[in-house]
Amino acid sequence: MGAAVELVPGGSLLTDTPEEGRALAVRLARLSVKTTQPDAEVRGRLRTVYAENADSLIAVAQVVAIEFATIAAANNYWR
Amino acid sequence: MGAAVELVPGGSLLTDTPEEGRALAVRLARLSVKTTQPDAEVRGRLRTVYAENADSLIAVAQVVAIEFATIAAANNYWR
Amino acid sequence: MGAAVELVPGGSLLTDTPEEGRALAVRLARLSVKTTQPDAEVRGRLRTVYAENADSLIAVAQVVAIEFATIAAANNYWR
Amino acid sequence: MGAAVELVPGGSLLTDTPEEGRALAVRLARLSVKTTQPDAEVRGRLRTVYAENADSLIAVAQVVAIEFATIAAANNYWR
Amino acid sequence: MGAAVELVPGGSLLTDTPEEGRALAVRLARLSVKTTQPDAEVRGRLRTVYAENADSLIAVAQVVAIEFATIAAANNYWR
Amino acid sequence: MGAAVELVPGGSLLTDTPEEGRALAVRLARLSVKTTQPDAEVRGRLRTVYAENADSLIAVAQVVAIEFATIAAANNYWR
Repeated sequence: MGAAVELVPGGSLLTDTPEEGRALAVRLARLSVKTTQPDAEVRGRLRTVYAENADSLIAVAQVVAIEFATIAAANNYWR
Repeated sequence: MGAAVELVPGGSLLTDTPEEGRALAVRLARLSVKTTQPDAEVRGRLRTVYAENADSLIAVAQVVAIEFATIAAANNYWR
Repeated sequence: MGAAVELVPGGSLLTDTPEEGRALAVRLARLSVKTTQPDAEVRGRLRTVYAENADSLIAVAQVVAIEFATIAAANNYWR
Repeated sequence: MGAAVELVPGGSLLTDTPEEGRALAVRLARLSVKTTQPDAEVRGRLRTVYAENADSLIAVAQVVAIEFATIAAANNYWR
Repeated sequence: MGAAVELVPGGSLLTDTPEEGRALAVRLARLSVKTTQPDAEVRGRLRTVYAENADSLIAVAQVVAIEFATIAAANNYWR
Repeated sequence: MGAAVELVPGGSLLTDTPEEGRALAVRLARLSVKTTQPDAEVRGRLRTVYAENADSLIAVAQVVAIEFATIAAANNYWR
Protein backbone atom coordinates (compact mmCIF):
# COMPACT_ATOMS: atom_id res chain seq x y z
CA MET A 1 0.00 0.00 0.00
CA GLY A 2 2.45 2.65 1.20
CA ALA A 3 1.32 6.10 0.07
CA ALA A 4 -1.62 4.69 -1.90
CA VAL A 5 -5.10 5.98 -1.14
CA GLU A 6 -7.08 3.89 1.32
CA LEU A 7 -10.16 2.82 -0.64
CA VAL A 8 -12.40 1.30 2.06
CA PRO A 9 -12.22 3.26 5.33
CA GLY A 10 -12.25 0.83 8.24
CA GLY A 11 -11.71 -2.07 5.87
CA SER A 12 -15.30 -3.29 6.04
CA LEU A 13 -18.68 -2.73 4.41
CA LEU A 14 -20.50 -3.60 7.61
CA THR A 15 -21.89 -0.75 9.67
CA ASP A 16 -24.13 -0.53 12.71
CA THR A 17 -26.75 1.70 11.16
CA PRO A 18 -28.09 2.85 7.77
CA GLU A 19 -26.84 6.33 8.62
CA GLU A 20 -23.29 5.04 8.97
CA GLY A 21 -23.71 2.97 5.82
CA ARG A 22 -24.77 6.04 3.94
CA ALA A 23 -21.77 7.98 5.24
CA LEU A 24 -19.55 5.14 4.07
CA ALA A 25 -21.13 5.33 0.60
CA VAL A 26 -20.27 9.02 0.40
CA ARG A 27 -16.70 8.31 1.46
CA LEU A 28 -16.26 5.46 -1.03
CA ALA A 29 -17.39 7.76 -3.83
CA ARG A 30 -14.94 10.47 -2.76
CA LEU A 31 -12.09 8.01 -2.42
CA SER A 32 -12.68 6.84 -5.99
CA VAL A 33 -12.17 10.40 -7.14
CA LYS A 34 -9.10 10.71 -4.91
CA THR A 35 -7.60 7.57 -6.44
CA THR A 36 -7.96 8.97 -9.94
CA GLN A 37 -6.88 12.48 -8.97
CA PRO A 38 -4.51 12.23 -5.97
CA ASP A 39 -3.59 15.92 -6.04
CA ALA A 40 -5.54 17.61 -3.23
CA GLU A 41 -5.03 21.04 -4.72
CA VAL A 42 -6.62 20.00 -8.02
CA ARG A 43 -9.50 18.26 -6.25
CA GLY A 44 -10.13 21.39 -4.19
CA ARG A 45 -10.26 23.49 -7.32
CA LEU A 46 -12.61 21.07 -9.08
CA ARG A 47 -14.84 20.94 -6.03
CA THR A 48 -15.65 24.61 -6.34
CA VAL A 49 -16.77 23.85 -9.90
CA TYR A 50 -18.98 20.82 -9.39
CA ALA A 51 -20.47 22.04 -6.11
CA GLU A 52 -21.99 24.92 -8.07
CA ASN A 53 -23.20 22.77 -10.97
CA ALA A 54 -26.58 21.08 -10.70
CA ASP A 55 -25.79 18.26 -13.11
CA SER A 56 -22.52 17.47 -11.36
CA LEU A 57 -24.28 17.31 -8.00
CA ILE A 58 -26.90 14.98 -9.43
CA ALA A 59 -24.12 12.79 -10.87
CA VAL A 60 -22.44 12.63 -7.46
CA ALA A 61 -25.77 11.61 -5.95
CA GLN A 62 -26.00 8.81 -8.49
CA VAL A 63 -22.61 7.43 -7.51
CA VAL A 64 -23.57 7.56 -3.84
CA ALA A 65 -26.79 5.68 -4.64
CA ILE A 66 -24.87 2.89 -6.39
CA GLU A 67 -22.32 2.57 -3.59
CA PHE A 68 -25.11 2.53 -1.01
CA ALA A 69 -26.90 -0.29 -2.81
CA THR A 70 -23.85 -2.48 -2.26
CA ILE A 71 -23.39 -1.45 1.36
CA ALA A 72 -27.07 -1.94 2.15
CA ALA A 73 -26.99 -5.46 0.66
CA ALA A 74 -23.83 -6.22 2.64
CA ASN A 75 -25.64 -5.28 5.82
CA ASN A 76 -28.77 -7.22 4.87
CA TYR A 77 -30.48 -3.82 4.83
CA TRP A 78 -30.10 -3.46 8.62
CA ARG A 79 -33.31 -5.43 9.01
CA MET B 1 -22.80 14.00 13.93
CA GLY B 2 -23.33 17.53 15.24
CA ALA B 3 -24.09 19.92 12.38
CA ALA B 4 -23.55 17.22 9.73
CA VAL B 5 -26.38 16.49 7.33
CA GLU B 6 -28.62 13.59 8.36
CA LEU B 7 -28.32 11.13 5.48
CA VAL B 8 -31.06 8.60 6.26
CA PRO B 9 -34.19 10.27 7.68
CA GLY B 10 -35.64 8.12 10.42
CA GLY B 11 -32.51 5.98 10.45
CA SER B 12 -34.10 3.06 8.63
CA LEU B 13 -34.80 1.81 5.10
CA LEU B 14 -37.95 0.05 6.24
CA THR B 15 -41.26 1.70 5.47
CA ASP B 16 -44.88 0.64 5.79
CA THR B 17 -45.81 1.19 2.16
CA PRO B 18 -44.27 1.55 -1.32
CA GLU B 19 -45.47 5.14 -1.32
CA GLU B 20 -43.44 5.90 1.80
CA GLY B 21 -40.50 3.99 0.36
CA ARG B 22 -40.64 6.10 -2.73
CA ALA B 23 -40.75 9.29 -0.69
CA LEU B 24 -37.70 8.07 1.19
CA ALA B 25 -35.88 7.48 -2.11
CA VAL B 26 -36.55 11.08 -3.12
CA ARG B 27 -35.26 12.32 0.22
CA LEU B 28 -32.11 10.19 0.09
CA ALA B 29 -31.31 11.62 -3.32
CA ARG B 30 -31.81 15.19 -2.09
CA LEU B 31 -29.72 14.58 1.03
CA SER B 32 -26.85 13.35 -1.16
CA VAL B 33 -26.91 16.68 -2.93
CA LYS B 34 -27.14 18.49 0.40
CA THR B 35 -24.09 16.65 1.69
CA THR B 36 -22.02 17.74 -1.29
CA GLN B 37 -23.42 21.28 -1.34
CA PRO B 38 -24.46 22.22 2.22
CA ASP B 39 -25.19 25.84 1.33
CA ALA B 40 -28.98 26.18 1.10
CA GLU B 41 -28.75 29.41 -0.84
CA VAL B 42 -26.62 27.78 -3.55
CA ARG B 43 -28.92 24.75 -3.70
CA GLY B 44 -31.92 27.02 -4.09
CA ARG B 45 -30.28 28.83 -6.96
CA LEU B 46 -29.29 25.58 -8.66
CA ARG B 47 -32.80 24.23 -8.20
CA THR B 48 -34.24 26.94 -10.40
CA VAL B 49 -31.79 25.80 -13.08
CA TYR B 50 -32.30 22.03 -13.04
CA ALA B 51 -36.06 22.22 -12.48
CA GLU B 52 -36.31 23.92 -15.87
CA ASN B 53 -33.95 21.54 -17.66
CA ALA B 54 -35.34 18.31 -19.08
CA ASP B 55 -32.08 16.37 -18.95
CA SER B 56 -31.46 17.39 -15.34
CA LEU B 57 -34.95 16.24 -14.35
CA ILE B 58 -34.39 12.91 -16.08
CA ALA B 59 -31.08 12.55 -14.26
CA VAL B 60 -32.80 13.21 -10.93
CA ALA B 61 -35.36 10.55 -11.82
CA GLN B 62 -32.54 8.11 -12.46
CA VAL B 63 -31.06 8.68 -9.01
CA VAL B 64 -34.47 8.20 -7.41
CA ALA B 65 -34.88 4.94 -9.33
CA ILE B 66 -31.56 3.61 -8.03
CA GLU B 67 -32.30 4.62 -4.44
CA PHE B 68 -35.74 3.06 -4.69
CA ALA B 69 -34.31 -0.24 -5.91
CA THR B 70 -32.40 -0.52 -2.64
CA ILE B 71 -35.33 0.52 -0.48
CA ALA B 72 -37.70 -1.86 -2.27
CA ALA B 73 -35.30 -4.77 -1.74
CA ALA B 74 -34.91 -3.81 1.93
CA ASN B 75 -38.68 -4.04 2.33
CA ASN B 76 -38.90 -7.30 0.40
CA TYR B 77 -40.93 -5.32 -2.12
CA TRP B 78 -43.80 -4.90 0.35
CA ARG B 79 -45.13 -8.27 -0.79
CA MET C 1 -50.25 13.69 1.67
CA GLY C 2 -52.71 16.39 0.68
CA ALA C 3 -51.60 18.13 -2.52
CA ALA C 4 -48.36 16.12 -2.73
CA VAL C 5 -47.71 14.06 -5.84
CA GLU C 6 -48.69 10.40 -5.55
CA LEU C 7 -45.45 8.54 -6.18
CA VAL C 8 -46.61 4.93 -6.54
CA PRO C 9 -49.93 4.68 -8.42
CA GLY C 10 -52.09 2.02 -6.84
CA GLY C 11 -49.75 1.84 -3.86
CA SER C 12 -48.14 -1.43 -4.92
CA LEU C 13 -45.34 -2.78 -7.09
CA LEU C 14 -47.27 -5.97 -7.79
CA THR C 15 -48.97 -6.28 -11.17
CA ASP C 16 -50.73 -9.08 -12.98
CA THR C 17 -48.58 -9.01 -16.09
CA PRO C 18 -45.18 -7.81 -17.37
CA GLU C 19 -47.05 -5.37 -19.61
CA GLU C 20 -48.69 -3.74 -16.58
CA GLY C 21 -45.37 -3.80 -14.75
CA ARG C 22 -43.75 -2.00 -17.61
CA ALA C 23 -46.51 0.61 -17.68
CA LEU C 24 -45.96 1.12 -13.96
CA ALA C 25 -42.23 1.65 -14.57
CA VAL C 26 -43.03 4.38 -17.07
CA ARG C 27 -45.39 6.04 -14.62
CA LEU C 28 -42.91 5.89 -11.74
CA ALA C 29 -40.32 7.61 -13.90
CA ARG C 30 -42.77 10.35 -14.87
CA LEU C 31 -43.89 10.84 -11.27
CA SER C 32 -40.27 11.37 -10.22
CA VAL C 33 -40.06 14.21 -12.70
CA LYS C 34 -43.40 15.55 -11.49
CA THR C 35 -42.18 15.55 -7.89
CA THR C 36 -39.16 17.62 -8.81
CA GLN C 37 -41.04 19.91 -11.18
CA PRO C 38 -44.69 20.09 -10.02
CA ASP C 39 -45.64 22.81 -12.51
CA ALA C 40 -47.57 21.12 -15.34
CA GLU C 41 -47.03 24.03 -17.68
CA VAL C 42 -43.25 23.82 -17.30
CA ARG C 43 -43.28 20.03 -17.73
CA GLY C 44 -45.34 20.40 -20.90
CA ARG C 45 -42.86 22.87 -22.30
CA LEU C 46 -39.89 20.67 -21.42
CA ARG C 47 -41.63 17.67 -22.95
CA THR C 48 -41.59 19.26 -26.38
CA VAL C 49 -37.84 19.65 -25.95
CA TYR C 50 -36.84 16.18 -24.79
CA ALA C 51 -39.30 14.36 -27.03
CA GLU C 52 -37.37 15.74 -29.99
CA ASN C 53 -33.93 15.01 -28.56
CA ALA C 54 -32.44 11.57 -29.12
CA ASP C 55 -30.18 11.62 -26.07
CA SER C 56 -33.01 12.72 -23.80
CA LEU C 57 -35.20 9.90 -25.08
CA ILE C 58 -32.42 7.39 -24.47
CA ALA C 59 -31.98 8.78 -20.95
CA VAL C 60 -35.71 8.36 -20.29
CA ALA C 61 -35.44 4.77 -21.53
CA GLN C 62 -32.63 4.19 -19.05
CA VAL C 63 -34.73 5.37 -16.13
CA VAL C 64 -37.61 3.13 -17.23
CA ALA C 65 -35.20 0.18 -17.42
CA ILE C 66 -34.02 0.77 -13.85
CA GLU C 67 -37.54 1.16 -12.49
CA PHE C 68 -38.63 -1.97 -14.35
CA ALA C 69 -35.79 -4.02 -12.84
CA THR C 70 -37.24 -3.32 -9.39
CA ILE C 71 -40.82 -4.03 -10.42
CA ALA C 72 -39.85 -7.26 -12.19
CA ALA C 73 -38.00 -8.47 -9.11
CA ALA C 74 -40.99 -7.56 -6.93
CA ASN C 75 -43.18 -9.73 -9.12
CA ASN C 76 -40.68 -12.58 -9.19
CA TYR C 77 -40.43 -11.89 -12.91
CA TRP C 78 -44.01 -13.09 -13.47
CA ARG C 79 -42.67 -16.65 -13.72
CA MET D 1 -54.77 -0.39 -24.07
CA GLY D 2 -56.30 0.44 -27.46
CA ALA D 3 -53.83 2.43 -29.56
CA ALA D 4 -51.25 2.50 -26.78
CA VAL D 5 -47.76 1.16 -27.46
CA GLU D 6 -47.25 -2.49 -26.50
CA LEU D 7 -44.43 -2.36 -23.97
CA VAL D 8 -43.50 -6.04 -23.54
CA PRO D 9 -43.69 -7.94 -26.85
CA GLY D 10 -45.14 -11.39 -26.27
CA GLY D 11 -46.16 -10.37 -22.76
CA SER D 12 -43.38 -12.29 -21.05
CA LEU D 13 -39.76 -11.92 -19.98
CA LEU D 14 -39.12 -15.63 -20.46
CA THR D 15 -37.26 -16.70 -23.58
CA ASP D 16 -35.81 -19.97 -24.79
CA THR D 17 -32.28 -18.70 -25.32
CA PRO D 18 -29.93 -15.87 -24.31
CA GLU D 19 -30.00 -14.71 -27.93
CA GLU D 20 -33.77 -14.27 -27.78
CA GLY D 21 -33.45 -12.62 -24.39
CA ARG D 22 -30.99 -10.17 -25.81
CA ALA D 23 -33.28 -9.39 -28.74
CA LEU D 24 -36.08 -8.76 -26.25
CA ALA D 25 -33.82 -6.35 -24.33
CA VAL D 26 -33.22 -4.37 -27.52
CA ARG D 27 -36.95 -4.26 -28.22
CA LEU D 28 -37.85 -3.15 -24.69
CA ALA D 29 -35.39 -0.29 -24.99
CA ARG D 30 -36.86 0.80 -28.32
CA LEU D 31 -40.42 0.54 -27.03
CA SER D 32 -39.53 2.85 -24.14
CA VAL D 33 -38.47 5.44 -26.67
CA LYS D 34 -41.63 4.80 -28.70
CA THR D 35 -43.79 5.36 -25.62
CA THR D 36 -42.21 8.73 -24.98
CA GLN D 37 -42.13 9.75 -28.64
CA PRO D 38 -45.01 7.96 -30.43
CA ASP D 39 -44.50 9.85 -33.71
CA ALA D 40 -42.71 7.47 -36.11
CA GLU D 41 -41.62 10.29 -38.36
CA VAL D 42 -39.86 12.08 -35.50
CA ARG D 43 -38.24 8.84 -34.30
CA GLY D 44 -36.97 8.17 -37.81
CA ARG D 45 -35.42 11.60 -37.99
CA LEU D 46 -33.79 11.26 -34.58
CA ARG D 47 -32.49 7.82 -35.52
CA THR D 48 -30.35 9.28 -38.27
CA VAL D 49 -28.85 11.55 -35.63
CA TYR D 50 -28.05 9.10 -32.85
CA ALA D 51 -26.95 6.32 -35.19
CA GLU D 52 -24.11 8.59 -36.29
CA ASN D 53 -23.17 9.73 -32.80
CA ALA D 54 -20.77 7.59 -30.78
CA ASP D 55 -21.98 8.75 -27.38
CA SER D 56 -25.62 8.14 -28.29
CA LEU D 57 -24.79 4.62 -29.45
CA ILE D 58 -22.95 3.93 -26.21
CA ALA D 59 -25.95 5.25 -24.26
CA VAL D 60 -28.26 2.93 -26.18
CA ALA D 61 -25.93 0.04 -25.36
CA GLN D 62 -26.19 0.96 -21.70
CA VAL D 63 -29.97 0.79 -21.74
CA VAL D 64 -29.84 -2.58 -23.47
CA ALA D 65 -27.43 -3.83 -20.81
CA ILE D 66 -29.79 -2.80 -18.01
CA GLU D 67 -32.82 -4.36 -19.68
CA PHE D 68 -30.87 -7.54 -20.32
CA ALA D 69 -29.86 -7.83 -16.67
CA THR D 70 -33.54 -8.08 -15.77
CA ILE D 71 -34.36 -10.54 -18.53
CA ALA D 72 -31.37 -12.73 -17.72
CA ALA D 73 -32.38 -12.88 -14.06
CA ALA D 74 -35.96 -13.71 -15.06
CA ASN D 75 -34.64 -16.65 -17.05
CA ASN D 76 -32.31 -17.76 -14.27
CA TYR D 77 -29.51 -16.95 -16.71
CA TRP D 78 -30.54 -19.86 -18.99
CA ARG D 79 -28.43 -22.16 -16.83
CA MET E 1 -32.18 -14.44 -37.89
CA GLY E 2 -30.67 -14.41 -41.40
CA ALA E 3 -28.44 -11.39 -41.83
CA ALA E 4 -29.31 -10.04 -38.38
CA VAL E 5 -26.49 -9.35 -35.93
CA GLU E 6 -25.73 -12.20 -33.53
CA LEU E 7 -26.27 -10.68 -30.10
CA VAL E 8 -24.83 -13.34 -27.75
CA PRO E 9 -21.70 -14.96 -29.19
CA GLY E 10 -21.74 -18.67 -28.44
CA GLY E 11 -25.36 -18.43 -27.34
CA SER E 12 -24.58 -18.65 -23.64
CA LEU E 13 -23.65 -16.46 -20.68
CA LEU E 14 -21.66 -19.27 -19.08
CA THR E 15 -17.88 -19.13 -19.36
CA ASP E 16 -15.06 -21.13 -17.84
CA THR E 17 -13.24 -18.19 -16.30
CA PRO E 18 -13.76 -14.58 -15.22
CA GLU E 19 -11.38 -13.53 -17.99
CA GLU E 20 -13.61 -15.13 -20.61
CA GLY E 21 -16.66 -13.65 -18.92
CA ARG E 22 -15.11 -10.23 -19.12
CA ALA E 23 -14.29 -10.70 -22.80
CA LEU E 24 -17.92 -11.69 -23.37
CA ALA E 25 -19.06 -8.50 -21.62
CA VAL E 26 -16.95 -6.43 -24.00
CA ARG E 27 -18.40 -8.27 -26.99
CA LEU E 28 -21.99 -7.89 -25.81
CA ALA E 29 -21.46 -4.15 -25.49
CA ARG E 30 -20.00 -3.92 -28.99
CA LEU E 31 -22.79 -6.03 -30.46
CA SER E 32 -25.37 -3.66 -28.98
CA VAL E 33 -23.73 -0.84 -30.88
CA LYS E 34 -23.58 -2.99 -34.02
CA THR E 35 -27.30 -3.73 -33.77
CA THR E 36 -28.14 -0.04 -33.64
CA GLN E 37 -25.59 0.96 -36.27
CA PRO E 38 -25.07 -2.03 -38.62
CA ASP E 39 -22.91 -0.08 -41.07
CA ALA E 40 -19.30 -1.11 -40.45
CA GLU E 41 -17.94 1.92 -42.24
CA VAL E 42 -19.85 4.29 -39.97
CA ARG E 43 -18.84 2.36 -36.85
CA GLY E 44 -15.19 2.53 -37.93
CA ARG E 45 -15.44 6.27 -38.36
CA LEU E 46 -17.12 6.74 -34.98
CA ARG E 47 -14.52 4.53 -33.33
CA THR E 48 -11.74 6.97 -34.20
CA VAL E 49 -13.83 9.62 -32.44
CA TYR E 50 -14.72 7.88 -29.18
CA ALA E 51 -11.36 6.14 -28.81
CA GLU E 52 -9.79 9.58 -28.49
CA ASN E 53 -12.42 10.96 -26.11
CA ALA E 54 -12.00 10.35 -22.40
CA ASP E 55 -15.69 10.64 -21.54
CA SER E 56 -16.67 8.23 -24.31
CA LEU E 57 -14.12 5.69 -23.09
CA ILE E 58 -15.45 5.99 -19.55
CA ALA E 59 -19.00 5.51 -20.88
CA VAL E 60 -17.90 2.36 -22.72
CA ALA E 61 -16.33 1.10 -19.49
CA GLN E 62 -19.64 1.67 -17.73
CA VAL E 63 -21.52 -0.46 -20.24
CA VAL E 64 -18.95 -3.23 -19.90
CA ALA E 65 -19.33 -3.09 -16.11
CA ILE E 66 -23.11 -3.52 -16.35
CA GLU E 67 -22.85 -6.40 -18.83
CA PHE E 68 -20.23 -8.07 -16.66
CA ALA E 69 -22.45 -7.87 -13.57
CA THR E 70 -25.00 -10.03 -15.39
CA ILE E 71 -22.43 -12.49 -16.70
CA ALA E 72 -20.75 -12.81 -13.31
CA ALA E 73 -24.08 -13.55 -11.64
CA ALA E 74 -24.87 -16.12 -14.35
CA ASN E 75 -21.62 -17.89 -13.53
CA ASN E 76 -22.18 -17.67 -9.79
CA TYR E 77 -19.09 -15.46 -9.75
CA TRP E 78 -16.85 -18.41 -10.72
CA ARG E 79 -16.62 -19.29 -7.05
CA MET F 1 -4.71 -14.24 -25.69
CA GLY F 2 -1.25 -13.26 -26.95
CA ALA F 3 -0.87 -9.49 -26.96
CA ALA F 4 -4.48 -8.94 -25.90
CA VAL F 5 -5.15 -6.93 -22.76
CA GLU F 6 -5.64 -9.01 -19.61
CA LEU F 7 -9.12 -8.08 -18.42
CA VAL F 8 -9.30 -9.66 -14.95
CA PRO F 9 -5.97 -9.37 -13.09
CA GLY F 10 -5.30 -12.56 -11.18
CA GLY F 11 -8.13 -14.28 -13.02
CA SER F 12 -10.54 -14.14 -10.09
CA LEU F 13 -13.10 -11.86 -8.48
CA LEU F 14 -12.35 -13.25 -5.04
CA THR F 15 -10.20 -11.16 -2.74
CA ASP F 16 -9.21 -11.40 0.90
CA THR F 17 -10.46 -7.99 1.93
CA PRO F 18 -12.84 -5.20 0.82
CA GLU F 19 -9.79 -3.01 0.29
CA GLU F 20 -8.37 -5.48 -2.24
CA GLY F 21 -11.79 -5.85 -3.82
CA ARG F 22 -12.01 -2.12 -4.25
CA ALA F 23 -8.55 -2.00 -5.82
CA LEU F 24 -9.66 -4.73 -8.22
CA ALA F 25 -12.73 -2.66 -9.15
CA VAL F 26 -10.47 0.27 -10.04
CA ARG F 27 -8.26 -1.99 -12.15
CA LEU F 28 -11.20 -3.57 -13.98
CA ALA F 29 -12.46 -0.13 -14.91
CA ARG F 30 -9.05 0.93 -16.20
CA LEU F 31 -8.62 -2.30 -18.17
CA SER F 32 -11.94 -1.67 -19.91
CA VAL F 33 -10.58 1.63 -21.11
CA LYS F 34 -7.32 -0.04 -22.12
CA THR F 35 -9.21 -2.62 -24.18
CA THR F 36 -11.01 0.07 -26.11
CA GLN F 37 -7.95 2.32 -26.44
CA PRO F 38 -4.83 0.10 -26.38
CA ASP F 39 -2.45 2.95 -27.24
CA ALA F 40 -0.70 3.95 -24.01
CA GLU F 41 0.36 7.29 -25.42
CA VAL F 42 -3.23 8.25 -26.22
CA ARG F 43 -4.46 7.06 -22.82
CA GLY F 44 -1.77 9.14 -21.12
CA ARG F 45 -2.84 12.21 -23.03
CA LEU F 46 -6.52 11.65 -22.25
CA ARG F 47 -5.69 11.09 -18.59
CA THR F 48 -4.41 14.63 -18.24
CA VAL F 49 -7.77 15.76 -19.57
CA TYR F 50 -10.19 13.73 -17.46
CA ALA F 51 -8.12 14.00 -14.27
CA GLU F 52 -8.73 17.75 -14.38
CA ASN F 53 -12.43 17.49 -15.20
CA ALA F 54 -14.91 17.10 -12.37
CA ASP F 55 -17.59 15.38 -14.41
CA SER F 56 -15.12 12.90 -15.85
CA LEU F 57 -13.86 12.04 -12.37
CA ILE F 58 -17.42 11.51 -11.17
CA ALA F 59 -18.08 9.27 -14.19
CA VAL F 60 -15.00 7.21 -13.35
CA ALA F 61 -16.26 6.88 -9.78
CA GLN F 62 -19.55 5.59 -11.13
CA VAL F 63 -17.85 2.85 -13.12
CA VAL F 64 -15.82 1.85 -10.08
CA ALA F 65 -19.02 1.66 -8.03
CA ILE F 66 -20.65 -0.67 -10.54
CA GLU F 67 -17.60 -2.94 -10.78
CA PHE F 68 -17.35 -3.02 -7.00
CA ALA F 69 -20.98 -4.10 -6.65
CA THR F 70 -20.15 -7.24 -8.63
CA ILE F 71 -16.94 -7.95 -6.75
CA ALA F 72 -18.60 -7.42 -3.38
CA ALA F 73 -21.39 -9.84 -4.28
CA ALA F 74 -18.80 -12.37 -5.49
CA ASN F 75 -17.12 -12.20 -2.10
CA ASN F 76 -20.40 -12.39 -0.21
CA TYR F 77 -19.57 -8.90 1.01
CA TRP F 78 -16.64 -10.21 3.07
CA ARG F 79 -19.08 -10.93 5.87
